[in-house]
Amino acid sequence: MSEENDPIGDSEELQEQLQEIERLLARHRLVKEFTHRQNTYRRELIDDLIHRQNQNELNRKLDRMHPADVAYVLEALPLEDRLLVWDMVRSEKDGEILLEVSDAVRETLIDSMDRHELVAAAESLDTDELADLVPDLPQEVIEDVFQSLPSEEQEQLRTAMSYSEGTVGALMDFGMMTVREDVALEVVLRYLRRFDELPAHTDKIFVTDRDRVLEGVLTLESLLTNDPETEVRDVMKRDVVRFRPEDSAEEAAQAFERYDLNSSPVVDENNRIIGRITLVAVVDFIREESEAEQLANVGLREEEDIFASVWNSVRNRWAWLAINLVTAFVASRVISVFEGSIEKLVALAALMPIVAGIGGNSGNQTITMIVRAIAMGKVKFDAGKRLLKKELGVALINGVIWGGLLGVMAWFLYGSISLGIVMTGAMTLNLLLAASAGVGIPLLRLRLGGDPALGSSVMITALTDSGGFFIFLGLATLFLL
Amino acid sequence: MSEENDPIGDSEELQEQLQEIERLLARHRLVKEFTHRQNTYRRELIDDLIHRQNQNELNRKLDRMHPADVAYVLEALPLEDRLLVWDMVRSEKDGEILLEVSDAVRETLIDSMDRHELVAAAESLDTDELADLVPDLPQEVIEDVFQSLPSEEQEQLRTAMSYSEGTVGALMDFGMMTVREDVALEVVLRYLRRFDELPAHTDKIFVTDRDRVLEGVLTLESLLTNDPETEVRDVMKRDVVRFRPEDSAEEAAQAFERYDLNSSPVVDENNRIIGRITLVAVVDFIREESEAEQLANVGLREEEDIFASVWNSVRNRWAWLAINLVTAFVASRVISVFEGSIEKLVALAALMPIVAGIGGNSGNQTITMIVRAIAMGKVKFDAGKRLLKKELGVALINGVIWGGLLGVMAWFLYGSISLGIVMTGAMTLNLLLAASAGVGIPLLRLRLGGDPALGSSVMITALTDSGGFFIFLGLATLFLL
Repeated sequence: MSEENDPIGDSEELQEQLQEIERLLARHRLVKEFTHRQNTYRRELIDDLIHRQNQNELNRKLDRMHPADVAYVLEALPLEDRLLVWDMVRSEKDGEILLEVSDAVRETLIDSMDRHELVAAAESLDTDELADLVPDLPQEVIEDVFQSLPSEEQEQLRTAMSYSEGTVGALMDFGMMTVREDVALEVVLRYLRRFDELPAHTDKIFVTDRDRVLEGVLTLESLLTNDPETEVRDVMKRDVVRFRPEDSAEEAAQAFERYDLNSSPVVDENNRIIGRITLVAVVDFIREESEAEQLANVGLREEEDIFASVWNSVRNRWAWLAINLVTAFVASRVISVFEGSIEKLVALAALMPIVAGIGGNSGNQTITMIVRAIAMGKVKFDAGKRLLKKELGVALINGVIWGGLLGVMAWFLYGSISLGIVMTGAMTLNLLLAASAGVGIPLLRLRLGGDPALGSSVMITALTDSGGFFIFLGLATLFLL
Repeated sequence: MSEENDPIGDSEELQEQLQEIERLLARHRLVKEFTHRQNTYRRELIDDLIHRQNQNELNRKLDRMHPADVAYVLEALPLEDRLLVWDMVRSEKDGEILLEVSDAVRETLIDSMDRHELVAAAESLDTDELADLVPDLPQEVIEDVFQSLPSEEQEQLRTAMSYSEGTVGALMDFGMMTVREDVALEVVLRYLRRFDELPAHTDKIFVTDRDRVLEGVLTLESLLTNDPETEVRDVMKRDVVRFRPEDSAEEAAQAFERYDLNSSPVVDENNRIIGRITLVAVVDFIREESEAEQLANVGLREEEDIFASVWNSVRNRWAWLAINLVTAFVASRVISVFEGSIEKLVALAALMPIVAGIGGNSGNQTITMIVRAIAMGKVKFDAGKRLLKKELGVALINGVIWGGLLGVMAWFLYGSISLGIVMTGAMTLNLLLAASAGVGIPLLRLRLGGDPALGSSVMITALTDSGGFFIFLGLATLFLL
């Protein structure tokens, strides 16, 4: 039942394994400390023995774990224990583990390795994996590794690294099988049997001519269900979703999802095959993207190592706080313009945050809808008018309902019906402002060629805050004082 | 080069197709209107001819499109055009298209179909797909479809529908091949050749005993790379990540990602195989989940049909606005307690939103980190103390830096050094409150068994708003007046 590198699978069990490793580590530390304190030779010998036994158990455990599970354990351990475990991991797994851990944790691991270890780890990887690791490696390690590669792989590495993040080229791998269309399936079957294994996640074989121009694909399914005498050309699929390396990874991901693809060829401008993109790579991309989005929503630059120093966390978070500080400061200056009015009618100070806050909430709802619709390709710039009309309608209804409710409350609390009316009016106007900005900001950014998602939430909140204060205090100054 | 149901792949081209269809629809409407206005028999005949030609072109176009692409077109068209196109789509694609469109659009399509059409559409689907559609179908259609199924599929449908959303059971399909371990690969190859096609996304065959107990898997890779004389038992993998139907889909998705799986068996408590989960299903789940999360972040109950009525949108968004209104109202009441202080020192009104706002931003950063770490299984309840210490450290540094900066500004703007000191103090305290709540809220909800993500942002914002106002105005009242 026990093979090497068993995936643990179950997350409960993974937790248990982690606790077991933490227990072993604690014993390990205890024994070590004890050894330091005692000085008699004999005592030391015994302790050393216990120590070794303990370490052996840890080693055995780690040896049997899947690299992804080791990565999980490393991420969950504080720095000191992490490096202890990292030293015990068998070096042939180093490369894969480095690929699996988060950027912040990878940095701590690479820092602890010498040049020789890093080169060995890097050399154990496929070229497309290596390309992902290279940006984090010291320059001299990169040179060593590059020199050690056969020239074909040097070429692949150069190709893989030439495409920027977010393109198909960056997700592409080179593990593809190709055959000619004029051979019988029988021949393909014999050809495959000469390999010990196929490239990971092979579900189809690419059919090319002698210039590597893609002519179609032979799925393993048709290879297995058709008569071995049949020729490849009679069962291959000619209509194939294919990508260019410079295509957007996000669009490729949407195509994979839409057409339920498992792998697709990547071709150059002459339709020559240069690589392959697999659903497994697409899944990694989707996850990373959705994580990056979650983090970006609250202005976090990257996933934090939860054991990172306080200082690292401060750095990761400061930019967004600074931007928000500026927008809050602007809103504060808007209020200060009306200090005279607030002095005369102090109820305004208590009511104004409601107007600003609900405007922000409503605007964020609108902008989220629109940004999503744009990302799915369902909205182009010219749809703006129709969407604006609808959002203004929603804002008007909400203004009348919620604004009306708040107006009645303000009237009730402060005994002034005109204050209530101003409240309702300001609320409605701020919701209309939120709706216009919620439609306008992302569409304008789309037109200007930017990413409509990035920072849209901060922009609309800034606008509805300052706008809300201005509208409410302005109306109050005009009609109440 | 042209097969039926070609996926279009490229999103540019998809856009062009959409525009072409819109153009054809416009002509279709024009001719129709024209026909209505003219009365002479001959005129009508000609128009009818143009009309038909136009419609034929549309039909041809739609016939050649992949169901996912038709779904895309339907979602991008206003209701009237959408139903026009829907009528033209060949009925054998109806089922698949219904699966592809968003919930809101699906509703509009189902409303336009009669019982007979719905039954036909449903019958064209696999049982696991049917299970996804059933909740949206009228009761009598469900009964008709159920009666028409062979008893094995009735059983599968019942199984598939018995698992709630978010479980492996809900993602599972029944398209699996099984073989015995004591046959030669040769035999397996011959067995496969008897099929016209394999279940979609087959990358491995399940090895079971006569009671359907899972003994291992035979990957197509080992089937293809090993000698046909070999027996299945000699090349099958016995260590297999397997799931139970009641397992969490989120955890299964993490395992698929961690171990780069393409498909996995689903077994019952006796290790008997009951289904299979594929990476393609997992990808759909990941996307849907990340979308649901984005929407939930701003309190949207579901993806809106962008052509939905204003009223539907109001309903989709109202709950969150209502909750935020309540929290804003509470904050407003906190302020009103200090109306006397504000009257005496009106600068407080201008400065208080800064304290509240930055606290909310910082708290949301903390809570996002913690919720993510919990979701990845990296944080359990007992890690709370350590995390709290770190977050308080970050808050203290931020309080000193940003609070100090704001203090200096307040001093400069209002000429009062004590106002500046109160500002710095309030800012620091509110950041400490935000940090405690950012760690405490999700961990407490985890302990209480809730979903730590849900509504956490609203809760922390409510706390830092009311808390920020209270701290700042309270300190000012104590020390400045």
